[in-house]
Amino acid sequence: MLLVRVDMIRGRSPENTRAIADAVQQSLIDVLKIPERDRFQIIALDAGLGFERTTSGAVIVHIFTQHGSTTRDKQRPYRTLAQRLAAAGVDGKDLFVSSFENGPEDWSFADGRAQYVEGDLAVPGH
Amino acid sequence: MLLVRVDMIRGRSPENTRAIADAVQQSLIDVLKIPERDRFQIIALDAGLGFERTTSGAVIVHIFTQHGSTTRDKQRPYRTLAQRLAAAGVDGKDLFVSSFENGPEDWSFADGRAQYVEGDLAVPGH
Amino acid sequence: MLLVRVDMIRGRSPENTRAIADAVQQSLIDVLKIPERDRFQIIALDAGLGFERTTSGAVIVHIFTQHGSTTRDKQRPYRTLAQRLAAAGVDGKDLFVSSFENGPEDWSFADGRAQYVEGDLAVPGH
Repeated sequence: MLLVRVDMIRGRSPENTRAIADAVQQSLIDVLKIPERDRFQIIALDAGLGFERTTSGAVIVHIFTQHGSTTRDKQRPYRTLAQRLAAAGVDGKDLFVSSFENGPEDWSFADGRAQYVEGDLAVPGH
Repeated sequence: MLLVRVDMIRGRSPENTRAIADAVQQSLIDVLKIPERDRFQIIALDAGLGFERTTSGAVIVHIFTQHGSTTRDKQRPYRTLAQRLAAAGVDGKDLFVSSFENGPEDWSFADGRAQYVEGDLAVPGH
Repeated sequence: MLLVRVDMIRGRSPENTRAIADAVQQSLIDVLKIPERDRFQIIALDAGLGFERTTSGAVIVHIFTQHGSTTRDKQRPYRTLAQRLAAAGVDGKDLFVSSFENGPEDWSFADGRAQYVEGDLAVPGH
């Protein structure tokens, strides 16, 4: 299970915002084989982003997931994100990705249950 | 000390937004025994959330806290959040909680001081 | 490389928002010696912040960086942030800072490459 947060600067069209969100989701399906319906995204349109290298195009993707991935596991989604976001009009220079990890006990996906530790779901990769 | 971030989709009434924020705070007081005045919440109303299972009701709660909690310590706030948020009109299916931990040296609550390591405050649980 | 997220309550003037963003960036240049052009900031103006000790002035700074810093390394930016933000009109009581760390393999700064592990950039401090 993954939670993704995408920060962009206010001003994009709804269609482009949606295309970017779809490209992010499809990248994770391609690479990490998450189920298509596991779509947990926060799309935030911020006041501004202090990116020196761009004026308004920056897209910052935070991937929140469980520990246990190898370095190679992490590199693949970066590349796929760049490719799929290019098709949504995002220049590679504007794409910033950062991953943060925690444990199986740190997630509750619904109903206040800790699905991984209460046995409702198998921990991925175990 | 806890920092909580609540992401919701834009469009809720101010009253409902406030009821949700209050329910989150009360859950943490109930379960984690934080002092009533330690209320550090970010309430973000986002452009949209790519939740497949809902259209507009999703509430994502991030709990940022220090390491040292057991798995059982973490499960209890999830359950209490679900109960208290139900009273604020949030369906359990729309509640997503995730916890992230760091250390005592990673917090400054005021005035640029690192209160736990400079001796202003005792580290919780120690 | 650092990513900074600054959450403030909606309602500040663009000039003051900019002064705060600049003060944060300058603090990190002063203390952590990051290159001037490495400015990666998310500036979020939120619906509200449940801070008991203030009504509208709260500024929450999240510093996302790589592990390897000492406790002393972390204390210095807190103090400098408080000093520089005071000059931008932010009361020390309203400043909340929290740091989160991950590894060199957790960052892609452009083009879908993991610059630290693919050899494009040296890992800071190594």
